[in-house]
Amino acid sequence: MAILVKKFGGSSVATPEKIHGIVDRVLKEKQPEDKVVIVVSAMGDSTDDLLTLAGRVNPDMPKRELDMLLATGEQVTIALMAGAFCAKGQPAVSFTGAQAGIKTNDKYSKASIIDVEAGRVKQALDEGKVVIVAGFQGITEGGDITTLGRGGSDTTAVAVAAGLKADMCDIYTDVDGVYTADPRIVPNAKKLDEITFAEMLELARLGAGVMQPRAVEYGEHNGVAIHVRSTFHEVPGTIIRGEYTVQEKKFVIRGVAHDTNVAKLAARGVPDEPGVAYKIFAALADANVDVDMIVQSASVQQNKNDILFTVAKTDMAEALGVLEKLKAEMPFDKVDLEVNVAKVSIVGAGMLGSPGIAAGMFGALAGAGINIGVISTSEISISCLVPAEDVTKAVNAIHAHFFPQEAEH
Amino acid sequence: MAILVKKFGGSSVATPEKIHGIVDRVLKEKQPEDKVVIVVSAMGDSTDDLLTLAGRVNPDMPKRELDMLLATGEQVTIALMAGAFCAKGQPAVSFTGAQAGIKTNDKYSKASIIDVEAGRVKQALDEGKVVIVAGFQGITEGGDITTLGRGGSDTTAVAVAAGLKADMCDIYTDVDGVYTADPRIVPNAKKLDEITFAEMLELARLGAGVMQPRAVEYGEHNGVAIHVRSTFHEVPGTIIRGEYTVQEKKFVIRGVAHDTNVAKLAARGVPDEPGVAYKIFAALADANVDVDMIVQSASVQQNKNDILFTVAKTDMAEALGVLEKLKAEMPFDKVDLEVNVAKVSIVGAGMLGSPGIAAGMFGALAGAGINIGVISTSEISISCLVPAEDVTKAVNAIHAHFFPQEAEH
Repeated sequence: MAILVKKFGGSSVATPEKIHGIVDRVLKEKQPEDKVVIVVSAMGDSTDDLLTLAGRVNPDMPKRELDMLLATGEQVTIALMAGAFCAKGQPAVSFTGAQAGIKTNDKYSKASIIDVEAGRVKQALDEGKVVIVAGFQGITEGGDITTLGRGGSDTTAVAVAAGLKADMCDIYTDVDGVYTADPRIVPNAKKLDEITFAEMLELARLGAGVMQPRAVEYGEHNGVAIHVRSTFHEVPGTIIRGEYTVQEKKFVIRGVAHDTNVAKLAARGVPDEPGVAYKIFAALADANVDVDMIVQSASVQQNKNDILFTVAKTDMAEALGVLEKLKAEMPFDKVDLEVNVAKVSIVGAGMLGSPGIAAGMFGALAGAGINIGVISTSEISISCLVPAEDVTKAVNAIHAHFFPQEAEH
Repeated sequence: MAILVKKFGGSSVATPEKIHGIVDRVLKEKQPEDKVVIVVSAMGDSTDDLLTLAGRVNPDMPKRELDMLLATGEQVTIALMAGAFCAKGQPAVSFTGAQAGIKTNDKYSKASIIDVEAGRVKQALDEGKVVIVAGFQGITEGGDITTLGRGGSDTTAVAVAAGLKADMCDIYTDVDGVYTADPRIVPNAKKLDEITFAEMLELARLGAGVMQPRAVEYGEHNGVAIHVRSTFHEVPGTIIRGEYTVQEKKFVIRGVAHDTNVAKLAARGVPDEPGVAYKIFAALADANVDVDMIVQSASVQQNKNDILFTVAKTDMAEALGVLEKLKAEMPFDKVDLEVNVAKVSIVGAGMLGSPGIAAGMFGALAGAGINIGVISTSEISISCLVPAEDVTKAVNAIHAHFFPQEAEH
């Protein structure tokens, strides 16, 4: 007997016909003794439709009420999918996040799961039912409905799998798995059979959008392996887990990520005094601006420095405001903003013990004639800022260097 | 300080603009110290849209899952309406049926309210918030979502009013109140200022569709007066309560009702023996057929009788099946079905002590040249079956007889 938790996204359940398609596939793969939990998102664009409706009523909708509204999207899907299983003769029951015991804090619109009380789900499974759980939503201790924010259904699925002590959680998506680079820009990118939680988190942080980091973290903390696989093709995908089970032909680097949602800001000519960097980044933190890469360098003027950093484009207006204010207060000379930049990164847990990795990356970029702006490193990644128009060329050059045999296929 | 419970139906909240219209009206009428609870239905046709969707997935949708699905309709409205109040600067909070403490039995799709735990609603009112409650839905002891069936939002509103010990529950509807007859067919029908629960229930049972009987019963059992009034006109409507507060110019008859959803069946030539009627009506009850008027008369053949009765048109196929089966078993001669009939009725708690009421009704029908089929009476009503094509003429003739001064206006 296996406990199987499977998550299907909104595009997989966009119509009654697609819902029946999922049901058929699940029933075909299900062994008689398997206990199956399905976690689903809202149908197709229905969440966007609800957001549009909310905007017409109140452009500044209270977040509690927005969660109350959005939670209906998944509730529609679960009822329909349970009905679809029953239509095929398979007993099934739907549970809202609250009924499935998904307890969250009260940070509406981006709540975190604090516990999963899986009693009702277990009981229904023991009664031989397929259980359909609404993704993306939970309930506070006070009984208020919350949503988990972007990618929340993945987190629900992993949390339910953890609550049921399932060994694996299947996340069905529109890609076949995790690739060594985005296959849309690197045609010969290779699908990975396995990747570690740490590598996957680093790839996600650096722009590889396959899985939301929170679901991966939840899997890591609860020891639930995550199988990222295709809704459309019945082939194995990529399993995210704590350690490799198979020694694949070992690559030090597991993936090349890129991110174009980057803006570079610079405070030029700041005083060369203690506490200046602290002042700048404390002010940015107070404004809830998430700073990524940071470089400080000597200014062309004596006793002055330039401080450069990158933020997400969505934060750049806020960051600009903070800098302009500091420029007058501190004072310093000038604020620069550059939006035509992108970040390319390599990720691999093996790079720590392998010299020459950074040199290999810089060499690949140099060979492609690409100028490197800022460089930053973590234990398992190296990132370079490059001109936005060079991002495809940069990713391909790096990928060809670290995955040379793939280029020949 | 007053506790005000106001219910608005689906057509009143069909669009964001209409929702804002309701909010404006409520805020205009609200005194600063008033505690206001709004009960709402699903927006416009959204319940029908959900039913269509369900039909595409499973034409025989499990009732629990159908309730799970339909409950989303009201949940959308409450979130939007709470958002609309907040947009106008009035703190507000939405509650699902479960959150509002509407406890029901588990008769999915037509659940009955067994208790209202109004603690959360009270607390939110004490915090100065307008509370928006999802009508039509509740929750079982086991935590499953139920719906209350047709007219369920009215019942929710009256139940919440009872739970809060409110003196009055306002039901906003597309008519101005309860009339002495349907104004669409009797142009000079008069709006009643007051009517008793018993009279209202009898009118509803006899086809006057203003209020669902269950909401009226809930009001009667809990001593909550119900004010039926217009969404569109800011004028007083009709108050349904236990006893009249004002001695209006006293009419023995309070209203004339009619019902065209009637079919007449006859079992002709049944044996004139004890137990025959029992056999027929027990079989109908077993088939869940609700029988209304019943007449037994001697057949043209010796030692045989004819048994006539009426049912709702929706039940007539079922009833016909039962009779055809009994015809062979019993046996009797023949089954007749007549669908071109309608029932006209007069209702008034005062008729018991007033002789000549029945004669007045029959005389009015005779004067209009209308043939009476079956007659039945209750303590506070008299009903006659008439040809369907005569129903408008019949109602007008009876109304003119019992409300003569109205004809002069």
